[in-house]
Amino acid sequence: MTHVYNFNAGPAVLPPPALAQAQAELLDYHGRGMSILEMSHRSADFETINTEAEARVKRLLGLDDEYRVLFLQGGASLQFAMVPMNFLPPDRVADYILTDGSWSERAYEEARLIGEARIAGSTREENYRRVPEQHQLDLSPDPAYVHITSNNTIYGTQWHSWPDVGERMLVADMSSDILSRPLDARRFGLIYAGAQKNMGPSGVTVVILRTSLLSQGAKTVPTILRYATHAKNNSLYNTPPTFGVYLLNLVLEWIEASGGLAELGQRNQAKAQVVYDAIDRSGDFYRGHAEPTSRSLMNVTFRLPEEALEKQFVKEATAAGMVGLGGHRSVGGIRASLYNAMSLEGCQALASFMDEFLRQNG
Amino acid sequence: MTHVYNFNAGPAVLPPPALAQAQAELLDYHGRGMSILEMSHRSADFETINTEAEARVKRLLGLDDEYRVLFLQGGASLQFAMVPMNFLPPDRVADYILTDGSWSERAYEEARLIGEARIAGSTREENYRRVPEQHQLDLSPDPAYVHITSNNTIYGTQWHSWPDVGERMLVADMSSDILSRPLDARRFGLIYAGAQKNMGPSGVTVVILRTSLLSQGAKTVPTILRYATHAKNNSLYNTPPTFGVYLLNLVLEWIEASGGLAELGQRNQAKAQVVYDAIDRSGDFYRGHAEPTSRSLMNVTFRLPEEALEKQFVKEATAAGMVGLGGHRSVGGIRASLYNAMSLEGCQALASFMDEFLRQNG
Repeated sequence: MTHVYNFNAGPAVLPPPALAQAQAELLDYHGRGMSILEMSHRSADFETINTEAEARVKRLLGLDDEYRVLFLQGGASLQFAMVPMNFLPPDRVADYILTDGSWSERAYEEARLIGEARIAGSTREENYRRVPEQHQLDLSPDPAYVHITSNNTIYGTQWHSWPDVGERMLVADMSSDILSRPLDARRFGLIYAGAQKNMGPSGVTVVILRTSLLSQGAKTVPTILRYATHAKNNSLYNTPPTFGVYLLNLVLEWIEASGGLAELGQRNQAKAQVVYDAIDRSGDFYRGHAEPTSRSLMNVTFRLPEEALEKQFVKEATAAGMVGLGGHRSVGGIRASLYNAMSLEGCQALASFMDEFLRQNG
Repeated sequence: MTHVYNFNAGPAVLPPPALAQAQAELLDYHGRGMSILEMSHRSADFETINTEAEARVKRLLGLDDEYRVLFLQGGASLQFAMVPMNFLPPDRVADYILTDGSWSERAYEEARLIGEARIAGSTREENYRRVPEQHQLDLSPDPAYVHITSNNTIYGTQWHSWPDVGERMLVADMSSDILSRPLDARRFGLIYAGAQKNMGPSGVTVVILRTSLLSQGAKTVPTILRYATHAKNNSLYNTPPTFGVYLLNLVLEWIEASGGLAELGQRNQAKAQVVYDAIDRSGDFYRGHAEPTSRSLMNVTFRLPEEALEKQFVKEATAAGMVGLGGHRSVGGIRASLYNAMSLEGCQALASFMDEFLRQNG
């Protein structure tokens, strides 16, 4: 096996111990004579996994029964619809803060199909180089909720302190930075995240919501699209993506064994610093997209002086065993995603490569 | 590894070659130095898998570009909502034929939340022992569609010839018998199926629909819930359950290598016969739930004279290496699911066990 450093934006690198365990027991889960892939979601074994995974998320976030954790399907994209379907009644408005041209805008556009949504802040005119400052927000007096995207994979920005929304309910798409740093989840009414960046494989969506919200969801929404349906059934209303939840649970176990969110937060800070330092010492050769105060610890995005050089960079990096560095197809450039399972060594290798590439081409 | 025969109703037994390949390449997909679980859904490798899987489903069903095959999330349960959201306009009615108390009834109830749905046939009063006969159907003159459930896992019944719906559009939930026998898919406007019984793991939903329908879907539906969205993006509008589609593709490869649907249809017929024969030669000890003309080749359901005996049966069968035989929690009794990947040997082992259990307890 050729070793590579995988900088994919998601699906992304997974912790080696989780993958190794999944492989070791893929044909025979705990001596049951069958794969976890072949087991009923109603089996005691799977119910244990499901319960463990919920407990682990709550433990990592320090949450008690005031919150529920659900494992759903459909990714953040389905949450873009489920949130307003459940919590945006016809007589209310929802505030959306836009921090990137794809995910937060999509969330806003989807909400507009369902009810009244308005833009309560946006850095679009600055090409999404940063998240808005508090004084730039224009919140409704009494919105159904305020929606933010905590980390923006495409532009490489991240909220480093949460907006103050007063008593308004804060909802966040945390697909690309959940469980990557300490989080005061109690500030949020609802958090959702696709698992495929920091927590597991694609095909599982984690939803964390305040238990008190469950009775407030709209009753005319299709049963399968109500959070209350899934909460009542412990995420087993319909057949869950069992292998995805199983692997999520292994990754959560790895996060706990690694020291939890405080430790991962420090590691992720140190990892990102290594790559940002390479940008900052390059003169103007590597040009970070994000303003320093909004720099994402998860996705480092930068341009080179010419597109041809960017192609060469990606090609040579790939040859050197660093893959997944091409920027999002909508913006181009370079993007290095440094999720939980990316090692410090991978970041150091990338920084060294950047230095060397600059030396040869700068 | 203890060998067991896995009669789970779904998630269910998978073809050993597919699982073995998944295990062998789990840490390093085709020498790429990373797991398929870690690869971008926009990578050339995954796009190849995605394209291959669509082509295989179409080839197995003999379909050309008149149909599209989509790989979605959310299972049949989400399709219960998506079908009427897309294809049941406010001025039309949809006909539902009820053949079981859980899946077809749930599909009907979900449609009623979205538009006007009516029951155009039901065998509920006969405790769903069979599917309706043609003369028992009461179809609307011009419904948006007629919905059926092709195989009923809980009651163990199956449609062996399709209802004649004239020019009306037929929609089928084929979650539990798709790709288990030859199918004239052109009779259907739309077919949907969770993958976790005959095709792969849970977490992937296969939708096969007439291409001409794509322009007819409602435009007010959330983007993520429109079939047109997914068709336009080749099932890559949002991050797909990549591992699920990968494993689905391996199972489809196995189906093709096994001789396709004609061969699987014969095997499944022979397998079910072995178990039904054990019921039929038992006097009245094993009492099949389904009427013989509606017997499912996928799920053989039967009762024993007493509940205590049923518990003993499940316990002794489990000890003998035959697992997953408990009936659905809503009806009790015994259920043996004999999906594509269940071997004839497994069915013979079960039949022998049934004979012996009868000898000792009859």
